[in-house]
Amino acid sequence: MVTPVAHPDANLSPELLKRIDAYWRACNYLAVGMIYLRDNPLLREPLREEHLKQRLLGHWGASPGLSFMYVHLNRIINAYDQRAIFLAGPGHGAPGVLAPVYLEGTYSEVYPNKSEDEEGLRAFFKQFSFPGGIGSHCTPETPGSIHEGGELGYSISHAFGAAFDNPDLLVAVAVGDGEAETGPLATSWHSSKYLNPIRDGAVLPILHLNGYKINNPTLLSRIPNEELSNLMRGYGWTPHFVEGDDPMAMHQRMAETLDRCLAEIRGFQQQARESGQASRCHWPMIVLRTPKGWTGPKTVDGKRVEGFWRAHQVPLSGMHGNPAHLEQLEAWMRSYRPEELFDEQGRLRPELKALAPSGEMRMSATPHANGGLLRRALRLPDFRDYAQPIGRPGTERAMNTRPLGAMLRDVMARNADNFRVFGPDENTSNKLDAIYEVSKKLWLCDYREEDADGGELSPDGRVLEMLSEHTLEGWYEGYVLTGRHGFFATYEAFVHVIDSMYNQHAKWLSICEDIPWRARISSLNLLITSTVWRQDHNGFTHQDPGFLDVVVNKNPEVTRIYLPPDVNTLLSTVDHCLRSRDDINVIVADKQNHLQYLDMDAAIKHCTKGIGIWEWASNDQGGEPDLVMVGCGDIPTKEALAATALLREHFADIRIRFINVVDLFRLQPAGEHPHGLDDADFDSLFTKDRPVIFNFHGYPWLIHRLAYRRTNHRNLHVRGYKEKGNINTPLELAINNEIDRFSLAIDAIDRVPRLQVAGAHVKERLRDMQIECRNYAFEHGVDKPEVDDWTWPY
Amino acid sequence: MVTPVAHPDANLSPELLKRIDAYWRACNYLAVGMIYLRDNPLLREPLREEHLKQRLLGHWGASPGLSFMYVHLNRIINAYDQRAIFLAGPGHGAPGVLAPVYLEGTYSEVYPNKSEDEEGLRAFFKQFSFPGGIGSHCTPETPGSIHEGGELGYSISHAFGAAFDNPDLLVAVAVGDGEAETGPLATSWHSSKYLNPIRDGAVLPILHLNGYKINNPTLLSRIPNEELSNLMRGYGWTPHFVEGDDPMAMHQRMAETLDRCLAEIRGFQQQARESGQASRCHWPMIVLRTPKGWTGPKTVDGKRVEGFWRAHQVPLSGMHGNPAHLEQLEAWMRSYRPEELFDEQGRLRPELKALAPSGEMRMSATPHANGGLLRRALRLPDFRDYAQPIGRPGTERAMNTRPLGAMLRDVMARNADNFRVFGPDENTSNKLDAIYEVSKKLWLCDYREEDADGGELSPDGRVLEMLSEHTLEGWYEGYVLTGRHGFFATYEAFVHVIDSMYNQHAKWLSICEDIPWRARISSLNLLITSTVWRQDHNGFTHQDPGFLDVVVNKNPEVTRIYLPPDVNTLLSTVDHCLRSRDDINVIVADKQNHLQYLDMDAAIKHCTKGIGIWEWASNDQGGEPDLVMVGCGDIPTKEALAATALLREHFADIRIRFINVVDLFRLQPAGEHPHGLDDADFDSLFTKDRPVIFNFHGYPWLIHRLAYRRTNHRNLHVRGYKEKGNINTPLELAINNEIDRFSLAIDAIDRVPRLQVAGAHVKERLRDMQIECRNYAFEHGVDKPEVDDWTWPY
Ligand SMILES: Cc1ncc(C[n+]2csc(CCOP(=O)(O)OP(=O)(O)O)c2C)c(N)n1
Ligand SMILES: Cc1ncc(C[n+]2csc(CCOP(=O)(O)OP(=O)(O)O)c2C)c(N)n1
Ligand SMILES: [Mg+2]
Ligand SMILES: [Mg+2]
Repeated sequence: MVTPVAHPDANLSPELLKRIDAYWRACNYLAVGMIYLRDNPLLREPLREEHLKQRLLGHWGASPGLSFMYVHLNRIINAYDQRAIFLAGPGHGAPGVLAPVYLEGTYSEVYPNKSEDEEGLRAFFKQFSFPGGIGSHCTPETPGSIHEGGELGYSISHAFGAAFDNPDLLVAVAVGDGEAETGPLATSWHSSKYLNPIRDGAVLPILHLNGYKINNPTLLSRIPNEELSNLMRGYGWTPHFVEGDDPMAMHQRMAETLDRCLAEIRGFQQQARESGQASRCHWPMIVLRTPKGWTGPKTVDGKRVEGFWRAHQVPLSGMHGNPAHLEQLEAWMRSYRPEELFDEQGRLRPELKALAPSGEMRMSATPHANGGLLRRALRLPDFRDYAQPIGRPGTERAMNTRPLGAMLRDVMARNADNFRVFGPDENTSNKLDAIYEVSKKLWLCDYREEDADGGELSPDGRVLEMLSEHTLEGWYEGYVLTGRHGFFATYEAFVHVIDSMYNQHAKWLSICEDIPWRARISSLNLLITSTVWRQDHNGFTHQDPGFLDVVVNKNPEVTRIYLPPDVNTLLSTVDHCLRSRDDINVIVADKQNHLQYLDMDAAIKHCTKGIGIWEWASNDQGGEPDLVMVGCGDIPTKEALAATALLREHFADIRIRFINVVDLFRLQPAGEHPHGLDDADFDSLFTKDRPVIFNFHGYPWLIHRLAYRRTNHRNLHVRGYKEKGNINTPLELAINNEIDRFSLAIDAIDRVPRLQVAGAHVKERLRDMQIECRNYAFEHGVDKPEVDDWTWPY
Repeated sequence: MVTPVAHPDANLSPELLKRIDAYWRACNYLAVGMIYLRDNPLLREPLREEHLKQRLLGHWGASPGLSFMYVHLNRIINAYDQRAIFLAGPGHGAPGVLAPVYLEGTYSEVYPNKSEDEEGLRAFFKQFSFPGGIGSHCTPETPGSIHEGGELGYSISHAFGAAFDNPDLLVAVAVGDGEAETGPLATSWHSSKYLNPIRDGAVLPILHLNGYKINNPTLLSRIPNEELSNLMRGYGWTPHFVEGDDPMAMHQRMAETLDRCLAEIRGFQQQARESGQASRCHWPMIVLRTPKGWTGPKTVDGKRVEGFWRAHQVPLSGMHGNPAHLEQLEAWMRSYRPEELFDEQGRLRPELKALAPSGEMRMSATPHANGGLLRRALRLPDFRDYAQPIGRPGTERAMNTRPLGAMLRDVMARNADNFRVFGPDENTSNKLDAIYEVSKKLWLCDYREEDADGGELSPDGRVLEMLSEHTLEGWYEGYVLTGRHGFFATYEAFVHVIDSMYNQHAKWLSICEDIPWRARISSLNLLITSTVWRQDHNGFTHQDPGFLDVVVNKNPEVTRIYLPPDVNTLLSTVDHCLRSRDDINVIVADKQNHLQYLDMDAAIKHCTKGIGIWEWASNDQGGEPDLVMVGCGDIPTKEALAATALLREHFADIRIRFINVVDLFRLQPAGEHPHGLDDADFDSLFTKDRPVIFNFHGYPWLIHRLAYRRTNHRNLHVRGYKEKGNINTPLELAINNEIDRFSLAIDAIDRVPRLQVAGAHVKERLRDMQIECRNYAFEHGVDKPEVDDWTWPY
């Protein structure tokens, strides 16, 4: 039941107005304190140089605006019993968030030595942006934060992720007017087209038009209001402008506007929930135009600061040895009248404290911002039920991702309110469309007659498809950070679009590992498909397996990479990933028809080990191999097997060990990654001295980077993608990059000492076959049937 | 002088209308032919299965719309003598671009065996999306293309790059309605706020509302026109809607609208050019709403195709063994009435051919699309003039990027119409602000009084700053691809935002290497600054040197990485980069105060070698070293030097060779990168058996990836960033990641056999010093002065 905001009437009484302003002054006071002070936190003594930090770090400019929003949101939380969470897009304005978080007591609860008294305040000030302390953004250490705001652009998409399937939640999100210029932010306004007013909560964006970035005015603050209003309406929102610099007038306006916005929000929700009809809403949003560095120094050394870009970081600097500046700082701080705000002990006065919500209603203490607390494990079907029946290994074909679609469908069916699938218009292309049997694609815009046959659209679909990898990734992160689960499938080449988002999320998780009060959240599961080796119709621009090179640089505690070669290993891998926590799981698997190798039992064992000898493809049992052949990835595994067969065909007595790698980090030493194989195991698999031909899905150098410390590294010969591509048949592309069966067999002949001379004739034959294959492709546009239909012969 | 379009009157005569439609039918016919046929290109015989390609690849859906635009643009080129270039956002619609390119003769001029006759047409059809042929996007092989359109999102930013400083050019750009959902595209509409109507050309976006993506409707096609119109007006454009599916009516509407748009464009230009007053214009743009796969099969097997997502790729498939489909294809192709379009020889009939512009006025033959033809080398000042005077190496400090700002200022002054500097609101932060002395930041939005003091804004500034790395990179690429020069400086952590753009540009350049008719263009110069080691006030989110790991995966012919450690090496490096062609130069250099090492003479020599022994820092002259110490990057070099000094202080007889690496690819074998050092040189520098401690700017594994084939690799111990960061002082961050002087010295003691035991006491002392330093930082928030002020003592 939605309680309507019947008569929005925020005509604040003079008394309330005064208290709200006092609370805000307290926030601003603290923000300045954090940036400048290491002592004398309540200005009980005249300010002296030794009270100051030696290096002044932090961003003042955004802070007063953020606190202003926070304080006013507090009012509506109390007035309307509204659960809320707050995201600060320009997270560098952390002082403006940390201040109210401290004032409402959460900070001291989480960090007892930052107590609510003078001593605690001193520690709170000193630690800010200080070595051994906390960062200058809304880092994971900040109670209530799910959005650090270090890299700009993702605040709105994160906010929507938080709002999905949280019908009672209001997600307030401050968007920097600079941030709004980034691509990811600019398209994320369209997220409102994916918000279902029945089952989802609301997102209230507050575009913070403080006019400036670091050194420049912002575009959106320097166009006429009407144009900006058009823009927001064009994006599908209903803008409300709150503009000015007189605090008292602004409090009134902001309060009124927030009331109105909440009334609109609840109106939409009520109508949809009572009628059961979800439709697209033109949700309210706020344009808050206030001076950058509001209430800070107007000028410093004759230069304009408040309301100009100079307010961005530390507006008054060069304090040491500059008594005039020291004096100006003191005057500035005293302008907030701390003595009216804090009691003898240094605690916020009770009548002010009363303005904050209490318990979990505090935005800093909402469990939504510590999503692990709310996370329920998924109810998973038995992944074995989707198994691909397998006869002899390497003799049958199937589309690797199809059965996964069926499995995801059933995961969706069992977890209707806490699991979502994300994809940039590619789920059908990626053969995951079975999922639409239980849940359509969410669509709230106009419908056409033709949608009925094959559109797979519905206003209550739970699959989210938009052509923005950024927005999807942002939604997914927000969803997971607030305690839910999901799955994201995307083309391999274009996952690079979100490299930087991956980096930032990995950093977030990495810090969380060391924060005891952060409960563990679901892992992020990325399926990387439509891979480099099958770009028959898209060509060179769609060939890029380099995301893995980005992935491996992040903290090993939170990074996982899997390359399951067939259906059953893929199913087993995904089942594992859906259960895991606090990681980013990157799963590489192509969507086309591929040879199948392992039945479900074998697949489970193989995936559990992560790397292993394939007995059926090896003939070195009971002896030492002449050669170790390794496949990692679907196509590379097939070619490595075909090369093995070619070699065995041509050299009756050759002994080859065949290894497949699913879990890429098994290659790293145990001390470097939790999944790393210890040296003894590695040496027994890869031998200490035999040639190893390693056929890899990605750029070959990655394998050297992972395995360079291993005993047998000098005999490790890696083949992989080398940027030799165009419009090619699969085999032709393999040949160009030398991961094809012929190149591998030739390579083996060169590496196995006793074949080096004896193998010359065979090498010639292999080269001829390679040329024939290439010519056939040029002539017919497809690969030779005997290559395409090749199966494992033993 | 701008000729105004006085009475836009495109009421096409019935005769012209008929011809335009015929020309468009010819385009559509060719597009279908490219996708399906390998023989019988003019349907002179009944269509039989063997005329078809075996695999049907290509994207029909976007094609008719793209041709429609092209044909109509041809009309205004002729009617108004308007130079134009065409960019296809959804480059997968290449058939719709290749067709008119072929029909206007350019294709045959560039590729003589694709002649304008039946034989040429057959070859033209067969090669499309065929092994050994051309790709299915607007690849570099496509005459007239500067935008491949494989990865979606960059069409508008590329278009603006092409328009800058080309006052007579009209850049027409088709934007996919799916593409428009991407972040980069969504913010790039703001580019019009950076277009100066006096000195720049015009950009005419045509938003192609064909309603669908691969499998989904598009957002912008399913909101009311009024909302879309608001959006475009909000972005600052004047939208014109052209909607329908009846070709004849649509030709009229499109012609009228194009006339009107050109009139508006020339009106703005004339007014600005005659008055000399540049102001922001609300440029026209077109919303073209036509069915996806327009004129293609309405239904196939009872399923809707035209005007639905099913038209995206090959609308009629499964041709082999399906006579009904074959018949439908033939009927479809014959619906274009090829016999009316082509003469006996298979050439477009002369009355149709007459519709195309001729010579360089053809969009496929404009030299702007082969920018190297227009490129003039920069007039460069002597970079030696900005040299930092150096006393003893390693004893003085300077901000590395400041003098570069002065040099760029003078480059700008000398090349006022073909050099631009791009930056995301960070040029001042990056200490390049000297450039504003000759050219301000372009600003065409509103001005405020305060801008006068420190705003550095001007309507004719040539420095472009917007908070969108995507848009900047897109502008820069478009600018360079059309024959000009530039420089882009950005924060190291956030260059990952454009990883995928880097990848795509590298792929473009890589293909161009093999296209003889593509003239060489200026390199892309990326300065990566505000680096990982100096994130004192931003912390962990701003620490990410991993862009280099992305860079190294691309074709070595087009990739370069430089890490100049001081002012003079940076100046010399940038001078080199500004002269180079066809590469992407990545230059890593921090902006803070750093120790200076080389005077200009030494710097030039060092940069020319790219790697070298620093004699003044080595004491192994005339003998073999105990240890090779390597620095690569500014801070790592300083710490490596300090470690060298510590070791020499503690072990009087230790002999250390000091190497610095500027050109990272020197580490790769000569066979793998054109800058690779040959093995003999590498071995004599790094020895064959001595321990090497390599202190690296980035992730340490990158060095192993580059050098794993080298003789002495097993003794190579690399230190670099390992994701251990937070709010740190510089030394503390170095310690956390073990690139600090103490860790390096300890490492050296462990690696040099004769110190392993004898060094134990020293190791203890070093560890104590490390702890003291860290505690000092925690206490004071800054590094110990003796560390901060450390200078090279010998
Ligand atoms: C993607 C990205 N590019 C660049 C930066 C560097 N940066 C930090 S703050 C800032 C300006 C932000 O302006 P705005 O969003 O308006 O925030 P506010 O005015 O509230 O400080 C920039 C460019 C960044 N953090 N992220
Ligand atoms: C960044 C990116 N993500 C995903 C894709 C995969 N993709 C190729 S075409 C396409 C749909 C494009 O739709 P639209 O721009 O409307 O083009 P059109 O309708 O003209 O074919 C998608 C999602 C891509 N090429 N680039
Ligand atoms: Mg701002
Ligand atoms: Mg479309």
